[in-house]
Amino acid sequence: MSLNGLLKINGDFMPTENNVEILCVGNELLIGKTLNTNAHWLAKRVTSLGLKVRRITVVGDDLDEIAAAVRETIRRKPCFILVTGGLGPTFDDKTLEGVALGLDRRLEENEEALEMIKAKYERYVAEGRMKEYEMTPHRTKMGRLPEGAEPLPNPVGTAPGVILEHEGIKMVMLPGVPEEMKAIFDESVAPMIRELAGDLTFYEVSLEVRNLPESELAPLLDDVMHDNPYVYIKSHPKAAEKIPHLELHFSTTSKDSKVARQRIGRAVIQISEMIKKKGGIVRPIKP
Amino acid sequence: MSLNGLLKINGDFMPTENNVEILCVGNELLIGKTLNTNAHWLAKRVTSLGLKVRRITVVGDDLDEIAAAVRETIRRKPCFILVTGGLGPTFDDKTLEGVALGLDRRLEENEEALEMIKAKYERYVAEGRMKEYEMTPHRTKMGRLPEGAEPLPNPVGTAPGVILEHEGIKMVMLPGVPEEMKAIFDESVAPMIRELAGDLTFYEVSLEVRNLPESELAPLLDDVMHDNPYVYIKSHPKAAEKIPHLELHFSTTSKDSKVARQRIGRAVIQISEMIKKKGGIVRPIKP
Repeated sequence: MSLNGLLKINGDFMPTENNVEILCVGNELLIGKTLNTNAHWLAKRVTSLGLKVRRITVVGDDLDEIAAAVRETIRRKPCFILVTGGLGPTFDDKTLEGVALGLDRRLEENEEALEMIKAKYERYVAEGRMKEYEMTPHRTKMGRLPEGAEPLPNPVGTAPGVILEHEGIKMVMLPGVPEEMKAIFDESVAPMIRELAGDLTFYEVSLEVRNLPESELAPLLDDVMHDNPYVYIKSHPKAAEKIPHLELHFSTTSKDSKVARQRIGRAVIQISEMIKKKGGIVRPIKP
Repeated sequence: MSLNGLLKINGDFMPTENNVEILCVGNELLIGKTLNTNAHWLAKRVTSLGLKVRRITVVGDDLDEIAAAVRETIRRKPCFILVTGGLGPTFDDKTLEGVALGLDRRLEENEEALEMIKAKYERYVAEGRMKEYEMTPHRTKMGRLPEGAEPLPNPVGTAPGVILEHEGIKMVMLPGVPEEMKAIFDESVAPMIRELAGDLTFYEVSLEVRNLPESELAPLLDDVMHDNPYVYIKSHPKAAEKIPHLELHFSTTSKDSKVARQRIGRAVIQISEMIKKKGGIVRPIKP
């Protein structure tokens, strides 16, 4: 069975200091208007960069809710907190004020952030997208950051990202517009995460299993997990149990890709043989 | 401008005792393997039934993480906690044990739940999907519920849903397989939520705005929100600000649908006139 094309992604054997938490802000997520693709994208990227996402929290556009979530997240001491949404110019963009409240910091105009915002509007005018611009209070708002924070350039939109450090925890605020969030993450945040993660990377592979109900697979999984202590195996039913069809997902973390491949290979071969003996059908899923 | 086709969905003016929290359990959500469509579906349904989702939390398949999240959620005193994922037969299905730990209850075999599970396997055998079945420890596991809990029939799959009450809070555990989660919710949970919500329903309408940057729209929104205190308006940029294109989402909650339509209608007309005066283009979005 070929183990080529294993994705490198983070794992389950990380020290807790490599934990990351994601905090999403937006009523649209709580009323089911918007599917939270931002959390999904960030979780995948953080994992692939070698750190572990411990928790994802979603709250609404409410100062006290944001502040409470920030305080609770800080208490769990992740190394990184990634916050998305609520950085724009409208009244309901409350993330920076909520973060400041949660950390007991003042909100203050940041010269560097204001310069970034002005430069954007100047460019929009130069490109003919706007006739003129004025630094209205709503535009200035995007440059009012929690005390001690720094802006991160936004290669796509207007509102800068924001980074600060609190009790050794790096906290990054990103816009909710997906293209802006992704651009700031890739340009400014990914290199920091990569450095923190060091050499540790994560490897995964998936098998498709048919013709064997999950409840019959369960004891086999116990045996294989016992024999392969560094491999985490999770079964994902693809339909209700009466139509036996599921995905088996294997993952491990190592500094050595050869070791990782060998570990997963051993577990895959062992479970495949057991499944076939029980009359199940198994085949690799291409990543 | 027609206000027909307004969706009835929950709002922002609910008493806090109408709060619902969603807790999703699954490593696959934290490594970015699976997009959290369950939380999205549940949030939309709860909202449309008249209650308000206050927070969504995602944790991994870990007893302590589940127990901690349960304790924290209980402390915020929602009227309902909806938990998804981790009810199946494999070792990493830890939700019931984690909930029991968080609530300081024992896990015990529930006769009614075991009967439901047995009946399923008997049907699978009768339908020829399985040759025979045995109540193995992994199958019995799905019938070990926190003390005082009751099973909810699963019309689609094997693992029953679970409901319990704790300090006046209703807590419902649903499977992670979307079809099973939806079926149990619609059959057993929706009627309870509907009863709790009473007559209150939520109305929403959306406008598309082009040719006006969000930062120029922001002060107009402040004015319209001030003049229409019962209407919540949120702007959703559809692209970065240099290409002005956004959605304006209006919502309100009322026992009287006529009042709700009038409220939103007034706000929609006021902002539309202001946007046109500034050179913006506005048109309704069909729900």
